[in-house]
Amino acid sequence: MIPSFSLGKGEESGLKDSYELVIIGAGPAGLSAGIYAIRAGLDAVIIDKALPGGLVAEDPIIENYLGFESIEGEKLAKYFRDHASKYLKIFSNIEVTEIKKLKDEFIISLSSGKTIKSRSVIFSTGTTHKKLNVKGEEEYLGKGVSYCVTCDAYFFKGKRVAVIGGGNSGAVASLYLKSVGVTPIIVEFMPRYMCEKAYQDQIKKNGIEYIMNAQVMEIGGDGGKVKFLRYRDRSTGEEKLLDVDGVFIYVGLIPQTQSLKGLGVNMDQRGYIITDKKCRTNISNFYAAGDVTGDSGQIIISAGQGAVAALSAYEDLRLK
Amino acid sequence: MIPSFSLGKGEESGLKDSYELVIIGAGPAGLSAGIYAIRAGLDAVIIDKALPGGLVAEDPIIENYLGFESIEGEKLAKYFRDHASKYLKIFSNIEVTEIKKLKDEFIISLSSGKTIKSRSVIFSTGTTHKKLNVKGEEEYLGKGVSYCVTCDAYFFKGKRVAVIGGGNSGAVASLYLKSVGVTPIIVEFMPRYMCEKAYQDQIKKNGIEYIMNAQVMEIGGDGGKVKFLRYRDRSTGEEKLLDVDGVFIYVGLIPQTQSLKGLGVNMDQRGYIITDKKCRTNISNFYAAGDVTGDSGQIIISAGQGAVAALSAYEDLRLK
Repeated sequence: MIPSFSLGKGEESGLKDSYELVIIGAGPAGLSAGIYAIRAGLDAVIIDKALPGGLVAEDPIIENYLGFESIEGEKLAKYFRDHASKYLKIFSNIEVTEIKKLKDEFIISLSSGKTIKSRSVIFSTGTTHKKLNVKGEEEYLGKGVSYCVTCDAYFFKGKRVAVIGGGNSGAVASLYLKSVGVTPIIVEFMPRYMCEKAYQDQIKKNGIEYIMNAQVMEIGGDGGKVKFLRYRDRSTGEEKLLDVDGVFIYVGLIPQTQSLKGLGVNMDQRGYIITDKKCRTNISNFYAAGDVTGDSGQIIISAGQGAVAALSAYEDLRLK
Repeated sequence: MIPSFSLGKGEESGLKDSYELVIIGAGPAGLSAGIYAIRAGLDAVIIDKALPGGLVAEDPIIENYLGFESIEGEKLAKYFRDHASKYLKIFSNIEVTEIKKLKDEFIISLSSGKTIKSRSVIFSTGTTHKKLNVKGEEEYLGKGVSYCVTCDAYFFKGKRVAVIGGGNSGAVASLYLKSVGVTPIIVEFMPRYMCEKAYQDQIKKNGIEYIMNAQVMEIGGDGGKVKFLRYRDRSTGEEKLLDVDGVFIYVGLIPQTQSLKGLGVNMDQRGYIITDKKCRTNISNFYAAGDVTGDSGQIIISAGQGAVAALSAYEDLRLK
């Protein structure tokens, strides 16, 4: 039930052999970078391994992007996409497998076998959902296990599900589930609320159960469908079962940097790309923006960083 | 014709004596910070010496804030204001005259004489228009000299005006003037286009004259109204006259940091506040975001920085 993106099977016609700037990743950072790059007169393009909008489209409701009091993620992602599309071409479903640097040029390899040259790169691939790595997670994927409420909540209407992870994303997911007629139970590893105050209040108001200090041990079922969640109460050591029909996993994110193995970009211990205030990395003309830097986690911050990265690219390519 | 803000005469009733966080300046950075601060559960307030929205409201048209393809500045400023107002009180027309730090607390003095205590401060006062400092500028202020096209273009319908400064803000101002039936002539000091490519194209398309390499010497008139602009052609040394009824000045911005004299915040040579990536300054629990840091200049970047500053304040106050 994870959206299938048919990776690497996008339409490549119209994609040139060479650019001044290739933006990899069409989330808020990449789309904002695209707008700024074209307005500055750079010959730029955006490539994304899935669809434009990034994880924004998965957010049920967004209330903290300045200018929009409350908007569905899918709608905001569409606004972003439409806005950037006025300026430049966004190639979807095209996967970048490797980026190398030869002298002053980046060689960007696509899964189709095609390569593109570019004088500069803005890397804004974002993050992907972290796995829980417990028994049953893989077995029941698509059979009750999901990483995306907006994609799959519908299947659980009138039923009870566990949401693993009580941080902001888990909280938002739970509120969304509740609003569409699903009964969520939040299961959080830490012994306290991990989401911001605004969400805590809404969780209480909506009567959503929030189990703290609980370590998930197993997702179990009848072989065909999820039937229960087994967790350990970390304060008593006692193991408990929750009867649920589904498990939504919101335990964090992993930066998507697989294509950078040969490039030598500095990353921190968690695998996030290290940048300065101007989104420059240790590799000249290679910029990073958005969640892949570990400095964002918020749509508005990513969009701002995208603009910063594009302005840095412009400065380095044209004013130096 | 500059909007009169009745500085320091705002309504102070409802303003408490003490907060966890005081946000000074209600531009995109301050408003975004406010939303994030309240959502994180901080006891916060926003104070602005004028009206919420900052210089955004003066922008005729904004086309690079991700999510809005094209929107009048006044309208976007209203969206921003309304959004933040859902979360916290914004006190307008209240001027902060001085900020001091006593032990772990900031003492914020207002022009009314009142003082507020706060555990932390986000400083997002932005910038104000730089003066040209030529003969006639002061004499003809409000008699043809203006720093704001959205405020004053109306008075010059059917007439010819000079726009001093051909950077992005001057370019946008000129396009706006043209669109409302004024004939602008751009006068730029440097010997080249100083605005981004998108604006250069529009300037040409609209047949707007762009005089380069020109140093303004005097704004002249009949004592009551502007009649001409005198400038020196820097390539030939020759002085020239332009018959104009108005002069709009867009020659840059100055950070608004007057209230910080006694605080010891590190600033760069141009007077902008120095921050790290997380919007922290050298003074603990004192953050800066938006144009006053010299790292923004763009609405989307300021809004992102506001969120960053609020999350840093939350982290420092609550998680340490």
